[in-house]
Amino acid sequence: MNSNDCNQKFPAPKTPHTAHLSVVGAGPGDPDLITLKAIKALKKADVILYDALANEELLDYAPPLALRIFVGKRRGFKRYGQDEINEMIVQYALQYGRVVRLKGGDPFLFGRGMEEIIYAEAQGISTEYVPGITSAVGVPGLAGIPVTHRGASESFWVVTATTENGELSKDLAFAIQSNATVIILMGTAKLAQIVECFLQAGKAETPIAIVQNGSLPNQKAVIASINTILPIAKAFEIDAPAVIVIGDVVSVKDTGKTIIREIENHIALNI
Amino acid sequence: MNSNDCNQKFPAPKTPHTAHLSVVGAGPGDPDLITLKAIKALKKADVILYDALANEELLDYAPPLALRIFVGKRRGFKRYGQDEINEMIVQYALQYGRVVRLKGGDPFLFGRGMEEIIYAEAQGISTEYVPGITSAVGVPGLAGIPVTHRGASESFWVVTATTENGELSKDLAFAIQSNATVIILMGTAKLAQIVECFLQAGKAETPIAIVQNGSLPNQKAVIASINTILPIAKAFEIDAPAVIVIGDVVSVKDTGKTIIREIENHIALNI
Repeated sequence: MNSNDCNQKFPAPKTPHTAHLSVVGAGPGDPDLITLKAIKALKKADVILYDALANEELLDYAPPLALRIFVGKRRGFKRYGQDEINEMIVQYALQYGRVVRLKGGDPFLFGRGMEEIIYAEAQGISTEYVPGITSAVGVPGLAGIPVTHRGASESFWVVTATTENGELSKDLAFAIQSNATVIILMGTAKLAQIVECFLQAGKAETPIAIVQNGSLPNQKAVIASINTILPIAKAFEIDAPAVIVIGDVVSVKDTGKTIIREIENHIALNI
Repeated sequence: MNSNDCNQKFPAPKTPHTAHLSVVGAGPGDPDLITLKAIKALKKADVILYDALANEELLDYAPPLALRIFVGKRRGFKRYGQDEINEMIVQYALQYGRVVRLKGGDPFLFGRGMEEIIYAEAQGISTEYVPGITSAVGVPGLAGIPVTHRGASESFWVVTATTENGELSKDLAFAIQSNATVIILMGTAKLAQIVECFLQAGKAETPIAIVQNGSLPNQKAVIASINTILPIAKAFEIDAPAVIVIGDVVSVKDTGKTIIREIENHIALNI
């Protein structure tokens, strides 16, 4: 047990029980963007291990005595490694029964959900995957940007900026040459590097949007083009968690075009 | 009115009412894979225009007197063009109030949802987008295939096989060169062509899965490699609607590897 759990009530382990893991997508943040299937899993949970991007309101669906354990990355909290989380899943499932692993977005889209499923199954624990609304599609959409649109894009490509070795994914070079909408998750810290890649490919005028806290009341979006986004993102203090969208879909709506013009004028006048 | 509507009860238009359009994602098929936000939109609907891939059980959330109008593609039904659907949305919204446009998957992922929103807004109708679980992520996941996985794929690329001009998207050529998981929607009719592209790129051994009716009780999946998938898909009578997944993520789970071996042995012995 770590210090986060001090205030938890510990129910007596159910006997007999079946060790089970549900890896559940919590969606992008708005608690209404959870699925019925996820709610059903939460209602049966004995233990919930949840991440920073999963809305804590969702924990209210679980039985009052279910253990609620935060295993995300947040200042002042213990930082769990993946191996520790895998082991916690197994120990809690064996001791208490039904574990829900609640993750922001979808568990299989950069969520490492399958690693947890494979580990648990190897210990004889039955598992289930419950898809979630991925931020890669839902967050741009809620900001008025369709990830595909006739005449603007016939494919879309999703990459995380944070790969294992800390470098930008090499796949970006291929995506830039294509007609795909490019969606970059966890990319705000590498924005300058991303912009440089697109500039080198001659895509200075390509529209780009960054949507922070998508689907939540504090959602904030900026729209610009590759050659103007850096000062704009800085001026509007855009920070993680955010989704970056690059491609003609960004300006499909007139509102998008208007925002680009307004922001660029604002920047031209004030910076 | 078309012949499908003969048995509809027509409520008297509400006066006064506000013309409103919700473009709602119905998810991949399992009615539990709908979001709370979508259910709330359906509960307030005066008219629902729904597609073939939206599960009809979801219509039960709407008030009993709401109009339920099928506008999808199905044998024996009128085939609506997009312009006709756009115009129906506007006319129903003006006459009855709240229109829900219910689409399979997510409305902005090859769903033409933004075209409908732009058209409706141009007529002064307020609009809303409600994301859905996209088949591109949820369907592979429910078949045991994570769209990304550490060590197997650091990005994923979603392409529709059915572009405006009827050709395979040119983006596929770039996707093939990358390390991305390639997801192809609406591609079963072009499977031979897709296989040819991967063979030409020297990817004969790359794992491929096809998941038909993903998330539904009649879900059917085949797993093979590029050079063996054609006879296997034929032997198992794989047909639309289906999601094609190509990349190392297909065999991340031992079960996936086992299925490949079993199916390939079966084919070697029997065909």
